[in-house]
Amino acid sequence: MKNILMAFFLVAIPLFSIAQPEQPVEQWKGKTILLIGAHPDDDSYSMGTLGMLNANDNEVYIVILTTGNVGTQDPKLGMMDLALIRKQEEQAALATMGIPLDHYINLGYDDGMLEYEDQKEVVSRLVRMIRKIKPDVLFSFDPGKGSQRWHKADHRASSYLSADAARAAMWPLMFQGQITVEGLEAHTIPEYMLYDSAEKDKNTWVDITGWEERKVDALSKYVSQFSAGWSDYKGPELSPEDEEEMKNNLRRWLKYKDGVPIEGFRHYAGLPDNIGR
Amino acid sequence: MKNILMAFFLVAIPLFSIAQPEQPVEQWKGKTILLIGAHPDDDSYSMGTLGMLNANDNEVYIVILTTGNVGTQDPKLGMMDLALIRKQEEQAALATMGIPLDHYINLGYDDGMLEYEDQKEVVSRLVRMIRKIKPDVLFSFDPGKGSQRWHKADHRASSYLSADAARAAMWPLMFQGQITVEGLEAHTIPEYMLYDSAEKDKNTWVDITGWEERKVDALSKYVSQFSAGWSDYKGPELSPEDEEEMKNNLRRWLKYKDGVPIEGFRHYAGLPDNIGR
Amino acid sequence: MKNILMAFFLVAIPLFSIAQPEQPVEQWKGKTILLIGAHPDDDSYSMGTLGMLNANDNEVYIVILTTGNVGTQDPKLGMMDLALIRKQEEQAALATMGIPLDHYINLGYDDGMLEYEDQKEVVSRLVRMIRKIKPDVLFSFDPGKGSQRWHKADHRASSYLSADAARAAMWPLMFQGQITVEGLEAHTIPEYMLYDSAEKDKNTWVDITGWEERKVDALSKYVSQFSAGWSDYKGPELSPEDEEEMKNNLRRWLKYKDGVPIEGFRHYAGLPDNIGR
Amino acid sequence: MKNILMAFFLVAIPLFSIAQPEQPVEQWKGKTILLIGAHPDDDSYSMGTLGMLNANDNEVYIVILTTGNVGTQDPKLGMMDLALIRKQEEQAALATMGIPLDHYINLGYDDGMLEYEDQKEVVSRLVRMIRKIKPDVLFSFDPGKGSQRWHKADHRASSYLSADAARAAMWPLMFQGQITVEGLEAHTIPEYMLYDSAEKDKNTWVDITGWEERKVDALSKYVSQFSAGWSDYKGPELSPEDEEEMKNNLRRWLKYKDGVPIEGFRHYAGLPDNIGR
Amino acid sequence: MKNILMAFFLVAIPLFSIAQPEQPVEQWKGKTILLIGAHPDDDSYSMGTLGMLNANDNEVYIVILTTGNVGTQDPKLGMMDLALIRKQEEQAALATMGIPLDHYINLGYDDGMLEYEDQKEVVSRLVRMIRKIKPDVLFSFDPGKGSQRWHKADHRASSYLSADAARAAMWPLMFQGQITVEGLEAHTIPEYMLYDSAEKDKNTWVDITGWEERKVDALSKYVSQFSAGWSDYKGPELSPEDEEEMKNNLRRWLKYKDGVPIEGFRHYAGLPDNIGR
Amino acid sequence: MKNILMAFFLVAIPLFSIAQPEQPVEQWKGKTILLIGAHPDDDSYSMGTLGMLNANDNEVYIVILTTGNVGTQDPKLGMMDLALIRKQEEQAALATMGIPLDHYINLGYDDGMLEYEDQKEVVSRLVRMIRKIKPDVLFSFDPGKGSQRWHKADHRASSYLSADAARAAMWPLMFQGQITVEGLEAHTIPEYMLYDSAEKDKNTWVDITGWEERKVDALSKYVSQFSAGWSDYKGPELSPEDEEEMKNNLRRWLKYKDGVPIEGFRHYAGLPDNIGR
Repeated sequence: MKNILMAFFLVAIPLFSIAQPEQPVEQWKGKTILLIGAHPDDDSYSMGTLGMLNANDNEVYIVILTTGNVGTQDPKLGMMDLALIRKQEEQAALATMGIPLDHYINLGYDDGMLEYEDQKEVVSRLVRMIRKIKPDVLFSFDPGKGSQRWHKADHRASSYLSADAARAAMWPLMFQGQITVEGLEAHTIPEYMLYDSAEKDKNTWVDITGWEERKVDALSKYVSQFSAGWSDYKGPELSPEDEEEMKNNLRRWLKYKDGVPIEGFRHYAGLPDNIGR
Repeated sequence: MKNILMAFFLVAIPLFSIAQPEQPVEQWKGKTILLIGAHPDDDSYSMGTLGMLNANDNEVYIVILTTGNVGTQDPKLGMMDLALIRKQEEQAALATMGIPLDHYINLGYDDGMLEYEDQKEVVSRLVRMIRKIKPDVLFSFDPGKGSQRWHKADHRASSYLSADAARAAMWPLMFQGQITVEGLEAHTIPEYMLYDSAEKDKNTWVDITGWEERKVDALSKYVSQFSAGWSDYKGPELSPEDEEEMKNNLRRWLKYKDGVPIEGFRHYAGLPDNIGR
Repeated sequence: MKNILMAFFLVAIPLFSIAQPEQPVEQWKGKTILLIGAHPDDDSYSMGTLGMLNANDNEVYIVILTTGNVGTQDPKLGMMDLALIRKQEEQAALATMGIPLDHYINLGYDDGMLEYEDQKEVVSRLVRMIRKIKPDVLFSFDPGKGSQRWHKADHRASSYLSADAARAAMWPLMFQGQITVEGLEAHTIPEYMLYDSAEKDKNTWVDITGWEERKVDALSKYVSQFSAGWSDYKGPELSPEDEEEMKNNLRRWLKYKDGVPIEGFRHYAGLPDNIGR
Repeated sequence: MKNILMAFFLVAIPLFSIAQPEQPVEQWKGKTILLIGAHPDDDSYSMGTLGMLNANDNEVYIVILTTGNVGTQDPKLGMMDLALIRKQEEQAALATMGIPLDHYINLGYDDGMLEYEDQKEVVSRLVRMIRKIKPDVLFSFDPGKGSQRWHKADHRASSYLSADAARAAMWPLMFQGQITVEGLEAHTIPEYMLYDSAEKDKNTWVDITGWEERKVDALSKYVSQFSAGWSDYKGPELSPEDEEEMKNNLRRWLKYKDGVPIEGFRHYAGLPDNIGR
Repeated sequence: MKNILMAFFLVAIPLFSIAQPEQPVEQWKGKTILLIGAHPDDDSYSMGTLGMLNANDNEVYIVILTTGNVGTQDPKLGMMDLALIRKQEEQAALATMGIPLDHYINLGYDDGMLEYEDQKEVVSRLVRMIRKIKPDVLFSFDPGKGSQRWHKADHRASSYLSADAARAAMWPLMFQGQITVEGLEAHTIPEYMLYDSAEKDKNTWVDITGWEERKVDALSKYVSQFSAGWSDYKGPELSPEDEEEMKNNLRRWLKYKDGVPIEGFRHYAGLPDNIGR
Repeated sequence: MKNILMAFFLVAIPLFSIAQPEQPVEQWKGKTILLIGAHPDDDSYSMGTLGMLNANDNEVYIVILTTGNVGTQDPKLGMMDLALIRKQEEQAALATMGIPLDHYINLGYDDGMLEYEDQKEVVSRLVRMIRKIKPDVLFSFDPGKGSQRWHKADHRASSYLSADAARAAMWPLMFQGQITVEGLEAHTIPEYMLYDSAEKDKNTWVDITGWEERKVDALSKYVSQFSAGWSDYKGPELSPEDEEEMKNNLRRWLKYKDGVPIEGFRHYAGLPDNIGR
């Protein structure tokens, strides 16, 4: 029950969960941002926001759990081929957004198999990342999305493992070795931007005006995922026609609200244990 | 994120998830149907539909995960006794519906213990079944049912494992041994009939007129489950009075809509990853 | 499917799930009550009700899964220190409510790690408890709470493991060793009081008039959790000022309905498999 | 490395491992003896010694891991039948040797499946037994027997799990919950009698003169294992002829050394970590 | 303890373990032979013997656990490529020896990962194979080889899993689903030929005179493993010079005893539980 | 079988396993050395050798699996206290030998629990270390020691996990993520120095003349393990008398051969799969 009342004493973070960021996301500065995703394109949901935050003097880190090494219908590609392609695609996309390449960390798990890895170890590795990066804000798949309700998948695993890691990271007596022998400190993440939320759960829409075309550019690097390359990969370079078609598809996927290009999130501030209240 | 956009390129299956079958279920012909359930009577929810589909020149396969070997309150029955009884009951029920006995496959897990089996191995075995049978439609416990919301059980396990298997079966790089050494092919199931759904989630009601009494007949074979045999099993034959009482109970369990006997489902068409959208 | 129809034959327990207790909780007598929780203060949600039931000639048992040995932000406390402090706090709280100390059983798992313990073994141990104590009513974290929807935690684990154990306990062929070599009997719990439910799911409010201050007294024993002791523990005794501040905080946490002090639950009666219907 | 040197400081137990008991086993008095085995007849190797020790004012406890519920070739017997038969046989055998029935504890695991149970939990349960019973001497399957070298089996599992538990039991910071919430204390077993050892490893032969016929009597209770009852069980009572034949077989299995009836062991005294040196 | 004495009653198989086959292997006829190995070339140790047995009217089956899909230092090869190459190599080798291709069964696990698969499931699958094929003799990696003593590997895993499966297969109450729903029967393998044994443990040398060159032919099909193809694979066809060099290497690997070409084994006859005595 | 023959083609490492180092250890220069151990004092067996190698222009790295956080009988110490003490002790010991502190890596697992961690993940982490450090020689607990034969322990786990990791590290298709996304390369360790071997298995004795007193100095830092600090820890500083007594004990533990101070090892050169031949 401690979780309910301990907010009395943890004054550094909000007393009750707050659904709207106090300061608009567009004005954030000097924050450390961590995004956790399952595949090397799961930052697509947030790409405009991440680019803008990075440009606004925030530090943006991307931790991806799997190499994405099974996500193809092209019989010519093996697992190592695909992992290398997707690493290059991810790096190209981040470069497009101006995010430093050494802020991209991939934990190297096999795509599609995250459910079957040892949950304690994966959480331990995410806790280490959180305690190292000390994020002010965590971007994560929303653990309350339909993915929970209807099926299991890497996305669901990613959302759950992230929530678990956020929770564990704050307790110095959990995963003690990170504290004692690695010299890290317990860290409480006070704020969350949950992506791929159900529409009805979104409460925050970030205005990405000025970043929308750059987002399309970045996403157009994911040739193996969003173009004909998905079933017949021919390298990272597309013909001008194919690139234009791909970009048009991606432009249609952009979301607008009252004519303003946006990315929608469920925002949450408070203790990780109460993330769903 | 690939799952959202890859429908651009997978033209063989619907672009967006479709909640109603394009062709009424009553008119389906030439399809391959696979039902996955946890116990050797979990086809009861769909028995009328399955019988009708079988009669209409569709191929109907039943894969049951457990032998049902703990489902009794009769202290005289051991686990092997009960497994044999339930195998005979299932075969009798399928025979009543005209479904060929060699279309019934039981994976042999212990009843009540499905949660504790190695999830990767169970999924692997279901993926093998899907790649062998190549169903056009999967009948499965609805992963979005209350079973998820309120408790864990074989039914929940069955629904999740089925969804996971449907997802994995489509990727040639997952469970590769089935492709390379067994010579199977990746298979994408395009359409789903989810049974035991919450009432509010059902979107498809199959008219089983003409099959209702045969369904009662089939279900009346489950003597160890739906009659006094549950606490005091005396063999597959009931006295005429007991059989009539059992059938009357079963008749009361039939569902009607506007006087028409129906079986309700949540129908879904699309990629398995989007099964809940 | 047996679960749907077997109620025909299990006349000792209600035919259909019943959302309101037939007899008001305030009038219960001679019942055996079992509460299962994750931490040595998870009885806080139900403390008034438990005290009243105990006073009304019901037998109240408390089974807690973990020692609570990581729940502190005080760097001076080690895991064993904290486990001992919380044991003493729990005993003091129960003594305040008049509940016999030998009715408190702690299974000794490490706090925060319940997710990673072998689920089959934890369920087996809870099943043993149920078969020994033979409760008429189980108090449990509500498995349908937001904890399921948004994150994983010991609370979620506790709710699920309890539901699983309630289900397994009724089948004599599950965890057979408890029946054959330990001489226990299968036991079906007919009635459930689920605590920490979502507000919209609560259907039963117990009037704890006359017990509210005693509840505050009991909860005030949890010095390591609900006072400044959470970050700087100085022993079980608080200064008069600190104790008064802590009690005032706890009083603010009490719930009232039309001026009456209450504790709210989701009540359920029926077979454990149907707990969510 | 601590294990090598820590004997400098642990004066209560021998400095170096000692292969022969200082005091002949036949003269032991006032000791607490714990035997751990896999099946409800694994005490057969030591039955004469146990009976003699019990008669000589030592406390003898028997902890058996499995119910023995698959050890039959009789198709008429189910798992629960067999578990009950073997419990009765074990109790009859112990009664014959004069060992109190409440000194027999069966942990209830399924026979043949010990390898697949969660090793941490089984060890935890054995540690609890050791900390409760506080044995001076542990009788265990010899972990160095051929069972390790050539195959896996419950016997190997039993030997390893016992050695692991003996090791863990001495560290107060391992399985802390047993110390903090159950109030047990760490316990170091100083002396070991390892049974079913390879002949070349035996170093201690207990003279069971006067106990040999009583041992045969005790073992003759294991009708389901050592008589025709193994393939066709007809109850605990044998015909006089069958009983005599069974006893004759058992007499032939007795071991003699220079005409003296003996039971051979590998004796070891020292820290459990050094059990093999 | 049953294992020691039950041989009294199991007259169909030898009373005590017998280290030499009663009938010379060269004279065996009408037997069913099963070899279990980890990789699609682990039959190399026994290839001459298998070919001869097959020619002498015995039925020879080969069950391989992994696809061998990581066994290369050639960076051009992916996992699926290699699995297909090794399948083709294995089939070519067996064809050379005259063993029917449908007697080759590959369980499809990933090479190098056998240690980390669920042991219960792998054993279950091997038990199914044993109960289907009903071998008179099992060829297996020797569980007592140095592989046990010095390191863990697929070979060790294969030897242990085989021994475990042989043991479990004989008990009708283990892996019951195979008996009840699949209609298989418990099967006791009475005789074992353990390959890759330590030299000092070998007790049986099969005279493969007349089969040695055919063995070299067969092994020369493993181009990806025993030729320059290991680091630079160029297809199944070698140049005449390369093929000759490879065959010469393989010829040097043949073993002779007193000028006679032989294959050495540790032979064992008896109950699987006593395989090491 | 590839392991036997592949040495034909892997000319960079010895054809057959070689039991004696070609070049005396005392003359090694320019090598990279990796020691893997379970506890932060397991380098004690090799401390003289490591110091000498470090002084002789070799790079020495120490990877320890656990924090050593349960290795005490002092009831005043908690797990975090002990982990910090042992880290400081290890650093002091390495400093004494001149080994750079940033060559010490602790993986942070809990002491005594290594057996129960996910084996695949621990191996994966060791493989990463091997691929990063690219050692020419691995110092490891000898997997063939009595620890295997008689009991399970962190030492056994450490020896096995190291052997497994050495084996896996050489295959580029194993733990692929380390290759593809982390940019590491497969690495084959050609030479092994196995410590804590059985006396009969030692084949290499390193002359540590000139390093013996420094070794005693280094080991005297392990106050919590080798002094009265084991049961009553009073800080890293001992009184002059206590320090002298501790050093005298440690001096007695030094090994001599023909008057020369030595450290004995089982040396092995060859493929890791053949480590035991």
